[in-house]
Amino acid sequence: MKRILIKGNFIYPLSKERLEEKRNAFLIIENGRFVSFSDHAVPSDEEYDFSDNIIIPGLSDTHLHAPQYQFAGLYMDKSLLEWLNEHTFPEEAKYKDMKYAEKAYSIFISALNKSPTTRLSCFATIHEDSSFLLASMLDDAGYSGYVGKVNMDRNSPPDLTEDTEESIKSTLSFIRRTEKLKNISSAVTPRFVPSCTDSMMKALSEILLDNPGLVVQSHLCENKDEIEWVRSLHPEAENYASVYDRYGMLGRRNKSIMAHVCWPEDAELDLLENRNVFVAHSPSSNENLSSGIAPVSRMLERGINVTLSSDVAGGSSISMFSVISRALSHSRIRNAFFSDRALTFPEAFYLSCLSSSPLFSSQSGSIFPSWDADLVVISDSSIKSTLNEGLSLSERLERYVYSCAELPVVAKFIKGRKVV
Amino acid sequence: MKRILIKGNFIYPLSKERLEEKRNAFLIIENGRFVSFSDHAVPSDEEYDFSDNIIIPGLSDTHLHAPQYQFAGLYMDKSLLEWLNEHTFPEEAKYKDMKYAEKAYSIFISALNKSPTTRLSCFATIHEDSSFLLASMLDDAGYSGYVGKVNMDRNSPPDLTEDTEESIKSTLSFIRRTEKLKNISSAVTPRFVPSCTDSMMKALSEILLDNPGLVVQSHLCENKDEIEWVRSLHPEAENYASVYDRYGMLGRRNKSIMAHVCWPEDAELDLLENRNVFVAHSPSSNENLSSGIAPVSRMLERGINVTLSSDVAGGSSISMFSVISRALSHSRIRNAFFSDRALTFPEAFYLSCLSSSPLFSSQSGSIFPSWDADLVVISDSSIKSTLNEGLSLSERLERYVYSCAELPVVAKFIKGRKVV
Repeated sequence: MKRILIKGNFIYPLSKERLEEKRNAFLIIENGRFVSFSDHAVPSDEEYDFSDNIIIPGLSDTHLHAPQYQFAGLYMDKSLLEWLNEHTFPEEAKYKDMKYAEKAYSIFISALNKSPTTRLSCFATIHEDSSFLLASMLDDAGYSGYVGKVNMDRNSPPDLTEDTEESIKSTLSFIRRTEKLKNISSAVTPRFVPSCTDSMMKALSEILLDNPGLVVQSHLCENKDEIEWVRSLHPEAENYASVYDRYGMLGRRNKSIMAHVCWPEDAELDLLENRNVFVAHSPSSNENLSSGIAPVSRMLERGINVTLSSDVAGGSSISMFSVISRALSHSRIRNAFFSDRALTFPEAFYLSCLSSSPLFSSQSGSIFPSWDADLVVISDSSIKSTLNEGLSLSERLERYVYSCAELPVVAKFIKGRKVV
Repeated sequence: MKRILIKGNFIYPLSKERLEEKRNAFLIIENGRFVSFSDHAVPSDEEYDFSDNIIIPGLSDTHLHAPQYQFAGLYMDKSLLEWLNEHTFPEEAKYKDMKYAEKAYSIFISALNKSPTTRLSCFATIHEDSSFLLASMLDDAGYSGYVGKVNMDRNSPPDLTEDTEESIKSTLSFIRRTEKLKNISSAVTPRFVPSCTDSMMKALSEILLDNPGLVVQSHLCENKDEIEWVRSLHPEAENYASVYDRYGMLGRRNKSIMAHVCWPEDAELDLLENRNVFVAHSPSSNENLSSGIAPVSRMLERGINVTLSSDVAGGSSISMFSVISRALSHSRIRNAFFSDRALTFPEAFYLSCLSSSPLFSSQSGSIFPSWDADLVVISDSSIKSTLNEGLSLSERLERYVYSCAELPVVAKFIKGRKVV
């Protein structure tokens, strides 16, 4: 048994509405899991004092593209389909080269280490070897979650268009190889409807049927032109979501993550609700690519599982703090234009951690007994104000999210292990 | 004659559409003004080498509330009128106390020093002495621009409601005292229509008539409830803007800055256009307070002078980089919802510097011969990417704006003097 003791000021969600604060507390962790808070020090194998800092649960990024990190913050004067063809696809094609992939994914993981993310679900590229490299590197670095080898066999540039049969073969091989990893699992990852033939979707649906534990992830209703394109490719389908649903990709057996959902029809919201789909709300990306603003509070009212995601590099920042502030702002803009209810700060913070807990194989996203000890330590010491002494932890955290989103974290623990 | 030589990579706007780059160049500054670029070193009194950095013109923040800086990033779960009453007014009332004002304004200026702002137009509070303290402190720190002692004589809490006559007397005294400063001038600053009686507005209009060199600044069409309130207070007025216009506050003789303009009527756009008003577009504030999104590209099409502003503390960040990225995002969201043209990066950058040049008493906002030598040096060395070597300065600047908005600047020159 290994016991870790962490001293500091903790803040974590109890529910969608409520943040709990523990000031000057000692947190006891045993074998990578939270045990309890204590008001005094207890004997331990490792001890950390973060009294001057704020300690929060690790955050989850439920949708990002690891190979796109290299151009994060660039080429944002484009809309989705132009941006894919002119910048994203040429960059992703480079990941056939394992040397390039190793160099680029090392940079990606260094950046991830400085961020508050401890769990993630990410897209790699179509290339099995470099996708597995990414999964292994994330696993070695301690991260939990999902990596998908991407499937694409139509409407893509030649160097990113797979032979369907080869794609399925390498997907199965990728799944098998990833099973040996400790914390990272594979996710079935059809890029989006326009880049997958019906044969591809059918074959992937069979993999899902055979492996009910597998997660499936894709994109849904991101942008008006994209939705129109799907309509023209699938005139027989009731709507975009129903194409995924036809192939068992909307969470009937397998957990499903659908990114964006900016422009859902009511029938699509019904599907997301009934099938228990995890929506990966990606506000930074949605504004950068002129996509729109997802109707998050309407989805929450229906009980849809909304989670937050950076969608790097449609999103220009890998920091989930930045995503939280964007989610709040987007909900306020929808409030101004469409009278949708605006999110509160505790609610947006909840969406970045506790909300996605059921998506992952072990419990995380808050500080509860027996849950995984994923913690992030941040410092707001760079913010000077006459009000500093009277602020609650919740107020300090809110201000940090708005003001310090891109600052590196002070420390990060995943399953009780200090990774940064 | 004092000559300064600065070596580095310069990027600056030539026009609304075009950014110019000078790599590994030497910039010659004499007596606080730009002279020319050189491709080799020349003799100088002071020399700086910023070869590893990016050098841009100083940015201008055309609307912010200095006394609100202490709560920047806090209390954003409110809309404008609640936020004013619950947080803003109680904080502003504290500036009656000169000790508090000195402490708080020192913190404000320290934060401003770390930001890319070199010119600003800001609101203080109703208190003459602490408003003058702010003006003096900004002047000593080297900043150029405007500070306004705020006028409020109705619909305000008791400790912020002035006697009209007293308010005018102290405004005149503030103007007189400020005339002795070097770089900071006073601005006539009725808070907004709801907080000024007609007597106050009339008296202020007479001050403007007597002093055609004075700038006037206020708020216009920020939020739907506020506009409704103005309508109920002034049923006789055609619209909100016409109330200011009646009192000569829309730039007929005096330069005028109107903040926000999220919900203008066509007739108001006509007024802003015909009167040559400077609109202070405050996207961060407009999203934080659920106000909306100003129709910036529509204003630009009409030739209205749009400038950018942080509106701290409605805006949560004092960094104009953050404001530039918000302005871009807002234009893209309007593009998605209303098909307004989205701003380009060069255009948004232009709005943060060159666009407001005519507002100030000396020329600044780009790097042109004889213009004021206001420069900001920034470092993007924290961003690692496989693409770094192939990037243009414009791409590096764009990425910096998205990724490093809150990082402190490396150095800042105002009128050739190194202030940071």
